[in-house]
Amino acid sequence: MERTFAFLGPRGTNTEEAARLIFRGENDAFRPYRTIPDCLEAASEGKVDYAVVPWENSLEGSVNLTLDWIIHKIDLPILSELIIPISHQLSCAKREHPLALSDVTKVLSHPQAVAQCHEFLRDHLSHAEIEYVSSTAEAARLVSEHVEEPWVAISAMQAVHTYPVTLLKENIEDVENNFTRFIVLGKESLVLPEAETHKTTILVTLPSDFPGALHQVLSAFSWRRLNLSRIESRPTKTGLGNYHFVIDIEHKMDDVLLPGAFAEMEALGCQVRFLGTYPVFIKKRNGVELSLRS
Amino acid sequence: MERTFAFLGPRGTNTEEAARLIFRGENDAFRPYRTIPDCLEAASEGKVDYAVVPWENSLEGSVNLTLDWIIHKIDLPILSELIIPISHQLSCAKREHPLALSDVTKVLSHPQAVAQCHEFLRDHLSHAEIEYVSSTAEAARLVSEHVEEPWVAISAMQAVHTYPVTLLKENIEDVENNFTRFIVLGKESLVLPEAETHKTTILVTLPSDFPGALHQVLSAFSWRRLNLSRIESRPTKTGLGNYHFVIDIEHKMDDVLLPGAFAEMEALGCQVRFLGTYPVFIKKRNGVELSLRS
Repeated sequence: MERTFAFLGPRGTNTEEAARLIFRGENDAFRPYRTIPDCLEAASEGKVDYAVVPWENSLEGSVNLTLDWIIHKIDLPILSELIIPISHQLSCAKREHPLALSDVTKVLSHPQAVAQCHEFLRDHLSHAEIEYVSSTAEAARLVSEHVEEPWVAISAMQAVHTYPVTLLKENIEDVENNFTRFIVLGKESLVLPEAETHKTTILVTLPSDFPGALHQVLSAFSWRRLNLSRIESRPTKTGLGNYHFVIDIEHKMDDVLLPGAFAEMEALGCQVRFLGTYPVFIKKRNGVELSLRS
Repeated sequence: MERTFAFLGPRGTNTEEAARLIFRGENDAFRPYRTIPDCLEAASEGKVDYAVVPWENSLEGSVNLTLDWIIHKIDLPILSELIIPISHQLSCAKREHPLALSDVTKVLSHPQAVAQCHEFLRDHLSHAEIEYVSSTAEAARLVSEHVEEPWVAISAMQAVHTYPVTLLKENIEDVENNFTRFIVLGKESLVLPEAETHKTTILVTLPSDFPGALHQVLSAFSWRRLNLSRIESRPTKTGLGNYHFVIDIEHKMDDVLLPGAFAEMEALGCQVRFLGTYPVFIKKRNGVELSLRS
């Protein structure tokens, strides 16, 4: 049976790369959507089975648009998390003669990718103009369509495979600690390999008249020895100083510990919304495969 | 003596409006800078005395660029906080004949302002094209320079006063709960009116091998009855899952409670960086003055 995945497009993004690394069935189909809300709505309205969207980056932090749509707009559980290292590739259009870096006149990419390749650009392409475009995949597409121009793109490897470009230099990023977490959401459960790590994510809204409530919330986890791997605040949009907290718990949903913690938080006057319990798949840097430790 | 303030430009932004509301001395001079890092660097390098930058919005959340620059790049204390309501004004170029909304062909503004005036635009300007520009002030400037075009801008009132435009409709925003917190940073202390509210802001880095450390950190405040008004995580950029926490405490720096809490956190292996203790000034919606309760 075909499974369809909406991903944050255009074709050739890191999101597509993450989705294709883990979902490799013959009947897995991937459809690019223009924005994160478009991806999430497509899954919510049943136009696709699942949505794959970025969730957090190790340098840039949480993806607020994903958080806000999950909090305010849609009601889809998180079914899986994919963590992949982010690398940047330099490419040019397929040409008759090779392109020397000294002849390049323009570098196209997304501002974040440009910032993450600062040293390489300073050392090898300081003579070239930088043009910011809406995504790294769009940069590769534009470069591929201007064969006559000595332009280069900085993009994900997925874009190098997607558009007719030639790889000039691999992994030109300055920083090694660049990972992105993607999540898969959908109404139907998802058949996945066994994973070593599981997480549960909840949304907690504190009572507004109870200072110290966050401390009490954390107590509910602490005394049960439940580790939290992330706690992220987002405004409730009802006024300054009111927040939702998105909390990742390093524990699969169970019958005792998590329900107990949730009940305790609710007794304190907090609202608790369950956002999903799911396996986590990690691709190591320099590793070929996602570590599907089964 | 002249005091110079760098603000997030161009002229006519909400940041300028906030700065001019509180700093009204004859010798207060305001200089627009293109980006938040440019503002902060100008104050850090002594080109101006103070920088005024956005810090948090009640709808959009924290301004990550400000957080990241304060955490990673500069070392300037926070000297004051200004909280102002955000309203959106519709204006057109100064023309010979009045402009009817039905004749408007294009609406220029920043994407966030457009999103916040969704209902007004749907009801009154659905026939017009939307053009996104880099700031609301830039929208007003562009509209003012194209007198021949039936264009309108959505901007802050400050921009309506700054550029040669005519106000067409006041306060066209859908949402009321839109406030922005701005902070003033600088090396030299700042002479300010008395304020009713004070805050202290710190940056806490948790030891990486100590799950539950955040709970312990909050305990240090909780048992001292120190209220926290905000806790915001930002990646340390050393890998996924490592965070700094920016914590706002509703308490002026003192000799006993806060130093005790800081020492306790340090004993737990946390790094604590003091970011400032400062008065808070609030402009009420529909109020003319900042509430400088002296």
